[in-house]
Amino acid sequence: MIQLRSYLGDQWVAGSGSPQTLLNPATEEPLANASSGGLDLRGALEHARTRGGPALRALTFAERGALLKAMADAMQGERDRLIELGIANGGNTRSDAKFDIDGAIGTLLAYVDVANSLGSRKFLVDGEGIQLGRSARFHGQHIAVPHHGVAVHVNAFNFPAWGFAEKAAVALLAGMPVLAKPATSSAMVAHRIMEILAEKKILPEGALSLLVGSPGELVSLLGAQDVLAFTGSGDTGARIRSAKNVIEHSIRINIEADSLNAAVLGADVEPRSDMYELFLKDVVRDMTQKAGQKCTAIRRVLVPQSLLSSVKEDLIELLGTVKVGNPADGDVRMGPLATASQLSDALAGLERLGGKIVLGEKARKPGKGFFLSPVLVESPGDAVHEHEVFGPVASLLPFKDNPSSLVVRGNGGLVSSIYSEDQGFIEQVVMEIAPYHGRVFLGHPKIELSPGPGTVLPQLVHGGPGRAGGGEELGGPRGLAFYLQRVALEGSRPVIQKLLG
Amino acid sequence: MIQLRSYLGDQWVAGSGSPQTLLNPATEEPLANASSGGLDLRGALEHARTRGGPALRALTFAERGALLKAMADAMQGERDRLIELGIANGGNTRSDAKFDIDGAIGTLLAYVDVANSLGSRKFLVDGEGIQLGRSARFHGQHIAVPHHGVAVHVNAFNFPAWGFAEKAAVALLAGMPVLAKPATSSAMVAHRIMEILAEKKILPEGALSLLVGSPGELVSLLGAQDVLAFTGSGDTGARIRSAKNVIEHSIRINIEADSLNAAVLGADVEPRSDMYELFLKDVVRDMTQKAGQKCTAIRRVLVPQSLLSSVKEDLIELLGTVKVGNPADGDVRMGPLATASQLSDALAGLERLGGKIVLGEKARKPGKGFFLSPVLVESPGDAVHEHEVFGPVASLLPFKDNPSSLVVRGNGGLVSSIYSEDQGFIEQVVMEIAPYHGRVFLGHPKIELSPGPGTVLPQLVHGGPGRAGGGEELGGPRGLAFYLQRVALEGSRPVIQKLLG
Repeated sequence: MIQLRSYLGDQWVAGSGSPQTLLNPATEEPLANASSGGLDLRGALEHARTRGGPALRALTFAERGALLKAMADAMQGERDRLIELGIANGGNTRSDAKFDIDGAIGTLLAYVDVANSLGSRKFLVDGEGIQLGRSARFHGQHIAVPHHGVAVHVNAFNFPAWGFAEKAAVALLAGMPVLAKPATSSAMVAHRIMEILAEKKILPEGALSLLVGSPGELVSLLGAQDVLAFTGSGDTGARIRSAKNVIEHSIRINIEADSLNAAVLGADVEPRSDMYELFLKDVVRDMTQKAGQKCTAIRRVLVPQSLLSSVKEDLIELLGTVKVGNPADGDVRMGPLATASQLSDALAGLERLGGKIVLGEKARKPGKGFFLSPVLVESPGDAVHEHEVFGPVASLLPFKDNPSSLVVRGNGGLVSSIYSEDQGFIEQVVMEIAPYHGRVFLGHPKIELSPGPGTVLPQLVHGGPGRAGGGEELGGPRGLAFYLQRVALEGSRPVIQKLLG
Repeated sequence: MIQLRSYLGDQWVAGSGSPQTLLNPATEEPLANASSGGLDLRGALEHARTRGGPALRALTFAERGALLKAMADAMQGERDRLIELGIANGGNTRSDAKFDIDGAIGTLLAYVDVANSLGSRKFLVDGEGIQLGRSARFHGQHIAVPHHGVAVHVNAFNFPAWGFAEKAAVALLAGMPVLAKPATSSAMVAHRIMEILAEKKILPEGALSLLVGSPGELVSLLGAQDVLAFTGSGDTGARIRSAKNVIEHSIRINIEADSLNAAVLGADVEPRSDMYELFLKDVVRDMTQKAGQKCTAIRRVLVPQSLLSSVKEDLIELLGTVKVGNPADGDVRMGPLATASQLSDALAGLERLGGKIVLGEKARKPGKGFFLSPVLVESPGDAVHEHEVFGPVASLLPFKDNPSSLVVRGNGGLVSSIYSEDQGFIEQVVMEIAPYHGRVFLGHPKIELSPGPGTVLPQLVHGGPGRAGGGEELGGPRGLAFYLQRVALEGSRPVIQKLLG
């Protein structure tokens, strides 16, 4: 069996200790082993800080952008192989796997554009110069400079390519070296990407490392100039945020965690209208794409009481046609959950939701593979606002006049969506729910190729307050801020202006 | 004796339980009692959220700015009384007390300017609209809207007026109601300000509350839409950040904590030159103003080996002329420390610093009052980079060629300063130390009325990474971000443009 190694200190190194076995979740066939026991994490971090950091900081934004372009090109060159790995190791349909790989490449390229717009500087100039005294000589200027540490990225299992690339793109462009730790269960994609990038020596020494397997003591080795971005469960996020050194050194942590994303249908929407069909399509896509294992997927379907039975019938019909099975088979539209534990968590979550199951069942499909068919729940308990079931599961919630109070019971989310053509309704709901979200998606049938609320775009921020972890990623140049220290320069105007070049 | 009450739920309420006695730190005369036992903190927070929040959000930025203007005017009208309270309760010299009160008023007025520049909107439009698809119809726009909670401000003892006003100005302008908790020992100034504002009914109901005394369970009552800004010790900051609900709900916390601010003298600077004299003046000001009890005060004085003996002699001479005593006496230039425990902490800190005391002594001045004369330390131990002595204490540290490695041993600070006319040296040191700071001050003798590094200006960010708490306040409109949720609106361009108005 393949032994996945880690790439630390610009070397491929094998961990010791009892390995974790990576499976094909559709067949339960073992694919690879991974272990991180005995690896010199302290040395790997120091290598990144002392070699990768200075090398990246010596480059301009445009030069760092050229690195991202080369990364994207290298991944594009192995796209087919990466898609195959996504299918085998991730239980992805071909479409799911493309979504991940193309999302990764697309995000890298979007940050190439950001890099080019930032041009020949090595740090950001933040805002205009400020006259501080009566005379123009006393001057202030904010700049934003890369932290002198390493950016540790702890990625989720569901987007092994995209999650890796979107975080790495922003950190590398900011000028920080990256140590990425993919979720072990689906690590083969990120591992292959690292192989490609290392073979081609695309990045400066120390700029990118990969830790495959358990993170071990990784978090405890971080210092005040390091940063950590985590995508995954709220529980793990809370553990990271509570770590002694994280608290003591105010280490910057970005967490993207649980989210009970709502989709709201306006009472103005007629069944069979384009808006209505778009709403259905987006709900079905979010429940089935990646088997519902997207942090941005619609979990709560809020419909006016008057439209409840119509929406329910239509969703049952549409979801009923979705063929679930081994994604290696061509006509399969939804694959398995990623692991046995994801499946058991989803089943436990369904139990916790309560209510009435109007489509699917609270049971694993018989036979090999971690399969769960789409489940639509009606009249769930309060847990629908408190517990994310990370699978092909959504709940129907009727509302009377105003859905906002239901939406905000999610206590902070990544994205919610509104499908309506009633501008007054849209504006009211947006303003009521906006403080609880990182993104609000306004569905409109006239938008061609609308990706729906479940797709994260590099131009827009991704993250959310409260339950969603309080983080913020992407958003074009906004994403850089996490890796940069904003500093006010205060003093003589000519001195500061010379310094800015 | 005066019983200080709290202003909660738009009522003056008295706490029960054993009170803390506020003293005049120069005479140890008791001035007032404060207790928060039995107060309905949960109700006070809910009142702020449900009354103050909506009232503020209904106003435009310009209208909120008018409230800040009225606050500033009201404080200006009682300036003399507030200065007297600062002298009596804070151990401030008249100059120290003016610095605090005028800083408060000046910061409010600076945010009136920010308010007017933001004009008639109720939320921020963040950046330009973004075309997301091939057609212009698919559109993105970031906005930033006030959180729907309460902004809790836990302020430090050293700037009872300024600390209160700078935090309140930004939160109120952002559109969040404030519950301020002054440090109890010096709470009389903030208490009087609250009296003035409440008497004149300057703010909408629920927009401002004051908790005098122990915070009790305050932190544990906060939810995901609340935010907390704290200025004080790193230990208390760590406790706040570790609180169960803070971790669980990703509650936004801004911490401004310990800082070992360095002042660097360039080897190019000739003794007796204007730059040299400015350097000495800033060190002496920071050691003696507020008896060194400023979070931004210079703690580490870094001088080239060649200038060490000159700087040492001159500082000893200048500091030797500073008259220390009861600030009620006119010619006193430095008052006592704020409390008995601040004094004992400072003495313990001096013990920890080690090294050789070349001016002053490791002892309380005999008699009444918490007095410590300026202390200059030479050849301190490593603790000089690890422990902040919050008093009139600084250490002399010689460097050979490059001071940066010494500066960054502070592991994150609010501000460091450079005094040099060697542009190459300035640029090198700035780039090496910038990631470890929130502000870098470049001393220049041609700047008239230069406030030195120890003065926080509302136009520039205040905060710092690592030991300094990882927070960021002020910086003109930048400060608003802490109280706002950035949200990406994604959808049809006409719908979004109508929504923005």
